[in-house]
Amino acid sequence: MRGSGKKTGFDLARYVPVLDWGRRYTWSAAGNDLVAAVIVTIMLIPQSLAYALLAGLPPEAGLYASIVPIILYSLFGTSRALAVGPVAVVSLMTAAAIGTVTQTMEVGYAAAALTLAGLSGAILLAMGLLRLGFVANFLSHPVISGFITASGLLIAASQLRHVLGISAEGHTLVELVMSLGAHLGETNLATLLIGAGAIVFLFWVRLGLRPVLERIGVPPRLASFMVKAGPVLVVAVTTALVWRQGLDAVGVDIVGAVPQSLPPLTFPDLSLDVVAALFVPALLISVIGFVESISVAQTLGAKKRQKIDPDQELIGLGAANVGASLTGGFPVTGGFSRSVVNFDAGAETPAAGAFTAVGLAIAALFLTPLIYFLPKATLAATIIVAVLSLVDVKTLRHSWAYSKRDFGAVAVTIVLTLLLGVEIGVMAGALLSILLFLYDTSRPHVAEVGLVPGTEHFRNILRHSVVTDPRVLTLRIDQSLYFANARFLEDYITDRVIDDEALRHVILMCSAVNAIDLSALDTLDRINARLSELGITLSLSEVKGPVMDRLQRGKFLDRLTGEVYLSQFVAFSALRALSEEGGPEITEDTPRLKLV
Amino acid sequence: MRGSGKKTGFDLARYVPVLDWGRRYTWSAAGNDLVAAVIVTIMLIPQSLAYALLAGLPPEAGLYASIVPIILYSLFGTSRALAVGPVAVVSLMTAAAIGTVTQTMEVGYAAAALTLAGLSGAILLAMGLLRLGFVANFLSHPVISGFITASGLLIAASQLRHVLGISAEGHTLVELVMSLGAHLGETNLATLLIGAGAIVFLFWVRLGLRPVLERIGVPPRLASFMVKAGPVLVVAVTTALVWRQGLDAVGVDIVGAVPQSLPPLTFPDLSLDVVAALFVPALLISVIGFVESISVAQTLGAKKRQKIDPDQELIGLGAANVGASLTGGFPVTGGFSRSVVNFDAGAETPAAGAFTAVGLAIAALFLTPLIYFLPKATLAATIIVAVLSLVDVKTLRHSWAYSKRDFGAVAVTIVLTLLLGVEIGVMAGALLSILLFLYDTSRPHVAEVGLVPGTEHFRNILRHSVVTDPRVLTLRIDQSLYFANARFLEDYITDRVIDDEALRHVILMCSAVNAIDLSALDTLDRINARLSELGITLSLSEVKGPVMDRLQRGKFLDRLTGEVYLSQFVAFSALRALSEEGGPEITEDTPRLKLV
Repeated sequence: MRGSGKKTGFDLARYVPVLDWGRRYTWSAAGNDLVAAVIVTIMLIPQSLAYALLAGLPPEAGLYASIVPIILYSLFGTSRALAVGPVAVVSLMTAAAIGTVTQTMEVGYAAAALTLAGLSGAILLAMGLLRLGFVANFLSHPVISGFITASGLLIAASQLRHVLGISAEGHTLVELVMSLGAHLGETNLATLLIGAGAIVFLFWVRLGLRPVLERIGVPPRLASFMVKAGPVLVVAVTTALVWRQGLDAVGVDIVGAVPQSLPPLTFPDLSLDVVAALFVPALLISVIGFVESISVAQTLGAKKRQKIDPDQELIGLGAANVGASLTGGFPVTGGFSRSVVNFDAGAETPAAGAFTAVGLAIAALFLTPLIYFLPKATLAATIIVAVLSLVDVKTLRHSWAYSKRDFGAVAVTIVLTLLLGVEIGVMAGALLSILLFLYDTSRPHVAEVGLVPGTEHFRNILRHSVVTDPRVLTLRIDQSLYFANARFLEDYITDRVIDDEALRHVILMCSAVNAIDLSALDTLDRINARLSELGITLSLSEVKGPVMDRLQRGKFLDRLTGEVYLSQFVAFSALRALSEEGGPEITEDTPRLKLV
Repeated sequence: MRGSGKKTGFDLARYVPVLDWGRRYTWSAAGNDLVAAVIVTIMLIPQSLAYALLAGLPPEAGLYASIVPIILYSLFGTSRALAVGPVAVVSLMTAAAIGTVTQTMEVGYAAAALTLAGLSGAILLAMGLLRLGFVANFLSHPVISGFITASGLLIAASQLRHVLGISAEGHTLVELVMSLGAHLGETNLATLLIGAGAIVFLFWVRLGLRPVLERIGVPPRLASFMVKAGPVLVVAVTTALVWRQGLDAVGVDIVGAVPQSLPPLTFPDLSLDVVAALFVPALLISVIGFVESISVAQTLGAKKRQKIDPDQELIGLGAANVGASLTGGFPVTGGFSRSVVNFDAGAETPAAGAFTAVGLAIAALFLTPLIYFLPKATLAATIIVAVLSLVDVKTLRHSWAYSKRDFGAVAVTIVLTLLLGVEIGVMAGALLSILLFLYDTSRPHVAEVGLVPGTEHFRNILRHSVVTDPRVLTLRIDQSLYFANARFLEDYITDRVIDDEALRHVILMCSAVNAIDLSALDTLDRINARLSELGITLSLSEVKGPVMDRLQRGKFLDRLTGEVYLSQFVAFSALRALSEEGGPEITEDTPRLKLV
């Protein structure tokens, strides 16, 4: 269906996908896109305001962060349904990063947010152009799941202050709980009633409304839309309530005056110390945002046989973030719930995103006076209800059943994120899973194999009834040989042969060895020399073509005391025959390796 | 031959190998050990003094570092020939670490050396008790080779100042060359003549003496010993020269008064900031020292069918370093040349080491007055000649031929070590090789396979003439599936199937898959769901027992749209037959995965 997948020559449409789909845009598609845009716009208005609050920024920043970024993504992104803008986890990470940097440096909060978005955009663009999307693969699912669960809890805890109408600070669970506890006595009753009421109502909308609507015969699609529109209703009702009852006068914190304006042109603070301090947070925000976004894009893309190019997605998200930093926003990425709404509402092309941007621009220009009396407690309530769905108990349960190690990765990430904050939490989780992975690869799977009677197959002697020969040892190596596992093989073989006086020949069956690096080659050389001193030959069997090509470049094959056999069966038969004839023994004259 | 390999129950002899070999010690073995000890002692005296000079410590520290550590290693180590003491590379690393810490902190040079040895000992003991010896596997051969080559060059450059009789400082090649250049005018002619003469003589001994000795009929073993004794002769001759000619009065720097004493009881400075500053250097010294030592021990051990236990070696080296820190020494490890001499001289048990310690103790008590006039230029000359053999051009050439990536690792490590110092050099090299390794593992080898006609074997369609079916796609996965490579597989399959309208069944042939972690399982689940939406089933074949056990713990197998087949041939045949019958199509009722 799409023509931009070709990889020969320079294809501008590859880097600017709009050149591809834009040419074939139809009125019918435009109609569908427009309908989707209206629905998404209505959903996005309260969400944008709420995530700005979460990031610690004025509400208009949320609208601005949704306008230009969404347009830029629609030009450069490859997903047709992805809706870009502020999302909960990234907003939390933004608040944590900026909170730290503004405490120690001479930089304004909003300016630091622009820097963070700009840096994140630059990192994403660089990763896209250098095709470094694979870096995100090193965040394992357990780590991501644990991180998002813990983030959801941290976000909910951080928003409680708005529901209680008190001031509380902190970026870890302990800090937040301590701070909330210290200020609990200052709770504002009117605020609490609005906030708690909104939470209860929104939970009911989420869990209880749909069955009611279905019972009274509302079509499923409309019911689904009405559920999504719950926050809009809460915003309208509580705003009206505060306005009519004058609740701001009794201490209910309201959004207040929001400028009526299109997104302003802004420039991030690029002073060296601020950039240096925000680089690591920006990198983490970029990678986490990308992982979340690509997963949504691929899921929705596959439903319509649309290809998503991860490296191009990096460019689309990078452009969106650069856009956010130049128009008064903060870091953005592809959001899950808004993208699903966009998809379900029938969006056919990224133009739906552009129409959404127009809708939000209209809101920013004309509707902001209407939210003057919007209580912050309402926004906090929408955030709390939204993020509690991030808490992923299923993965905890699932990983416990599947593998204690994966469970450990989830648990460690959750605990560290809650106790030490989002940045340390995700970095420690990622590092831990990489270290465990490296540990595993340092011990390759090696099986001693024997001949299955009546066949030419060789199987593990521990699991199958097979023919072996005390003079011939065959080891099947089930992994490529690298520096990290070469010594293990050396130790394994040395241990296995050193007391075995009957042994005359060792065969390494290399059917699963896709590569042998220089360290492993040196190790094989050393194994060969050691065996030779014990009067044992070393042979290889079933060496793959590319590996053989490489082995022939060194002198290892000249020094090899045995042969390289095409198949394990040939090797085993030949070496058994040799042993029976009392074939060539290793003598003092057998060429030896000069040991280093 | 040895009885301490058993792993059932607590076996004290396993942790204290002397309890094993000591019980069966004979007079004959003692005689051989004594002869070896005399030879090693004569060789070690100048070497110990020289490496103390290299580490920036007084000469007696070199003797002390060889006495108690050698005894402790003989009690706890598993190698029968390894000779422990100061070695060139570790002494250089010691000088670099202490030079940095004494510049910024209130700690004496000798006290910092004790702390470094103590920390290194503690780290080695901890690694041994926790069985963390595998950590050393992550230093690849190219990185070690490059590091040692660069260290050799740095050591030679750092010793030039003693040969020239000038003062020069620095821990990188640039610093050393600049500093030498600035002081070149102060060169002391008498010192230069002694130093240059010693270098020329020692090179001749190394390269030219043996042929001469062999021509005049000296037996090879004695010739070899005479070559090793070269430094002793140079020490004696130049000391006599300085003494007789009173060259110290014309500015030849001499060793001077060395206390006549057994190793003193000392305590390392354990103040927190010093320990913190020396921790990373101590870790690097431990790992590098261990890698060097274990390699020597294993090479010599294999020659006599003696097992070396890497974790016990850590304990032996750890005890030696703790001993060094308590008796006025500095970090030690198993040295290559001295161990080979020990082995060649006929050492049978670690008792040879204990006898060597006695010899050195006698030297420390009675012979130190004799080296009062020993010129430092002579010691520097012995170091320069010794370390230039560390320069490993062969590995550079070898790696260039074998693999440009391995060559890159050697070259980067050499350049960074020379330019940025030993610590940054070795860390950057190790990190680079681990990152490249991780990059590789993030793209598993996946081959599209078809049936070899007339057999039940499946081979790569790109390399073999095989039977395929447009409705059935088989992918052989040549690696375990982990979080790092799971997304690659997902992208690969999505890309492969999305435009293939004829496709009905995908089979993943898992013969080389030893493990599937939770991330990979989630990915398989997602692949299954995506394919299902495209009307394609997913099946697995040749799944290994342990992997199957684990898969059965989750719900993946319930959701799998296809089957798990015991063999690939059965899978291919069954799915072809299904397609021909127009078998079960995927319908709306086919159970689907709830996508996250």
